[in-house]
Amino acid sequence: MEDQKITSIKMAGKQSILFANPPVILSGSSVVGKKEGEGPLGSFFDQIEEDPMFGGTSWEDAESRLMKRAAELSIEKSGYQQDEIRFIVGGDLLGQLIATSFGIADLEIPIFGVYGACSTMGESMALGAILVDGGYANKVLAVTSSHFAGAEKQFRFPLAYGNQRPLATSWTVTGSGAVIIGNGDLAAEVTSKNKKDAVVKIKGVTIGKIVDYGVKDTMNMGACMAPAAYTTISQNLKDLNVQPNYYDRIITGDLGNVGKEILIDLLKQDGYDISSNHMDCGIEIFDPNTQDTHSGGSGCGCSAVTFTGYVMQKLKRKEWKRVLFVPTGALHSTVSFNEGNPVPGIAHGIIVEAE
Amino acid sequence: MEDQKITSIKMAGKQSILFANPPVILSGSSVVGKKEGEGPLGSFFDQIEEDPMFGGTSWEDAESRLMKRAAELSIEKSGYQQDEIRFIVGGDLLGQLIATSFGIADLEIPIFGVYGACSTMGESMALGAILVDGGYANKVLAVTSSHFAGAEKQFRFPLAYGNQRPLATSWTVTGSGAVIIGNGDLAAEVTSKNKKDAVVKIKGVTIGKIVDYGVKDTMNMGACMAPAAYTTISQNLKDLNVQPNYYDRIITGDLGNVGKEILIDLLKQDGYDISSNHMDCGIEIFDPNTQDTHSGGSGCGCSAVTFTGYVMQKLKRKEWKRVLFVPTGALHSTVSFNEGNPVPGIAHGIIVEAE
Repeated sequence: MEDQKITSIKMAGKQSILFANPPVILSGSSVVGKKEGEGPLGSFFDQIEEDPMFGGTSWEDAESRLMKRAAELSIEKSGYQQDEIRFIVGGDLLGQLIATSFGIADLEIPIFGVYGACSTMGESMALGAILVDGGYANKVLAVTSSHFAGAEKQFRFPLAYGNQRPLATSWTVTGSGAVIIGNGDLAAEVTSKNKKDAVVKIKGVTIGKIVDYGVKDTMNMGACMAPAAYTTISQNLKDLNVQPNYYDRIITGDLGNVGKEILIDLLKQDGYDISSNHMDCGIEIFDPNTQDTHSGGSGCGCSAVTFTGYVMQKLKRKEWKRVLFVPTGALHSTVSFNEGNPVPGIAHGIIVEAE
Repeated sequence: MEDQKITSIKMAGKQSILFANPPVILSGSSVVGKKEGEGPLGSFFDQIEEDPMFGGTSWEDAESRLMKRAAELSIEKSGYQQDEIRFIVGGDLLGQLIATSFGIADLEIPIFGVYGACSTMGESMALGAILVDGGYANKVLAVTSSHFAGAEKQFRFPLAYGNQRPLATSWTVTGSGAVIIGNGDLAAEVTSKNKKDAVVKIKGVTIGKIVDYGVKDTMNMGACMAPAAYTTISQNLKDLNVQPNYYDRIITGDLGNVGKEILIDLLKQDGYDISSNHMDCGIEIFDPNTQDTHSGGSGCGCSAVTFTGYVMQKLKRKEWKRVLFVPTGALHSTVSFNEGNPVPGIAHGIIVEAE
């Protein structure tokens, strides 16, 4: 939209960065479990694994193998060699990031370990784009993962306990998504390889603050995260001085049905109506009528695979031209929760465009 | 040294970055517990707190308060206002980084949560310097913390259990260190404020890989981390094409006495002798004869406060002109350990110079 044109500035407004030479997403990979494969987005994913253990011996081992597979697949799909990837930025939900530590050690690539709960894909992609745009790397791998059984064990109850799940709960996605972010100058190379497809670029990012509305219900993560999503989206629109329709879609990570309503209401307070172009990865990835997933999907993997599988396709085909991708995280730990603390949220925004 | 002159290149060798306009460390803060205050470096720390709870109600709450105090003090010492700090890069050892989430939420500054075990100060400072050098921020706060009692509870046994500690164990430092990293152009301003002191700059960084030698003894973290320190230091020397005496000191985080010996031996294999200029923060911070700390101090806070308290002083007084600061991390989790996995290590190198 002509009246909403923005210029490239490295420090845009209070929390945003716009890149001078926007990095290109050279490839994206999505590896998911059986349940995710049976969901509405099943046909968009690269690999669907029937074995919930991914050939491993524990849930943590399974998630490590899952992440490794997604990381290797993203490199393979990019057409570059493993030793051409200068850095990895990645993380997961498990304590001390063990899915990541054991998953990608074999790749022998220098790594920045990051933690933003389920917003981690946003943080990984933001730092990856900064490393590339700043000239510190030509190619960076950004990756994250989650596993339903590992997350239930880490945050709630072991599966064997068979606990009841309230309707506000979400279902942690078993999946890992990875992208290779490359220097903007590589756009021509990408175009020559895939003449049909648009080039997908990261135009900018909006880095989130920790937002705590005092919500203490760990069975209602949507309510914990919605205030953070609201803060980041509202700040993005202010920093860029644009209206919500600047984006074809504003895509949150895993708010689910409960969080979506809260987000839309909160943004209305600031005069922003996103009801017509908002999408939530958690709502899209499962069919609540047949898959018993209540409020929707969640976990680091939810936004990651929905982005690399589904959103990237829409952008490549130019069905959408500009998207604000906002992975949302609930900074939840059993220790802090059991000590009576609320669950603060965080969300990072990634401005993605098809060219 | 003239024959070891290096030029600024953003992609130096395989794992290093050299900054074109090296960021300045505008201030550093160190807040520690009573035991650390009684140690050999006690007089160098900004604040020594007698109350192990830091006025809080749990060990995690104590660590959050500790980190907040260090973060606020670093801002105060820098002479800038809180709202002039564009980003925070920070993390801690606890599952899901709860010390950080609850510690610095009140600051309302956009945050990148990071996890590199006890190497976290290296990762925070590296990303902080990248954000500043790249022009994405003028001032970034890099922070980390650890707390003896919180770490024992997280990784080993609750204190009340009164377990025996083998001689190879280290003692987690109760402390938090923070630095404000500013744009290189602010150097003149720093000089005019403190005419006596040298300006401390971050000249470059070497990002570490995950290194796993298969060590499974969680009571011997030095042995787990030494291979990672070796890999990062050796690569730094290769990337810059210099010899160990290029640095006045090569300072590892928390290898302790056992890890130090292994590191020196491993580097000899590559033809590097660092025996005369190596220093380990974990060895310096406690007196093993009177403080019962066995192999030395450890934890994110160990390298952080030794750097902000002691190393920064040495640099400001120009007693040392160039230092390679290498916080070392053991990617240890009770879950992965109990499942029979080894403890991989990681180490990030920060090239710091006094001008």
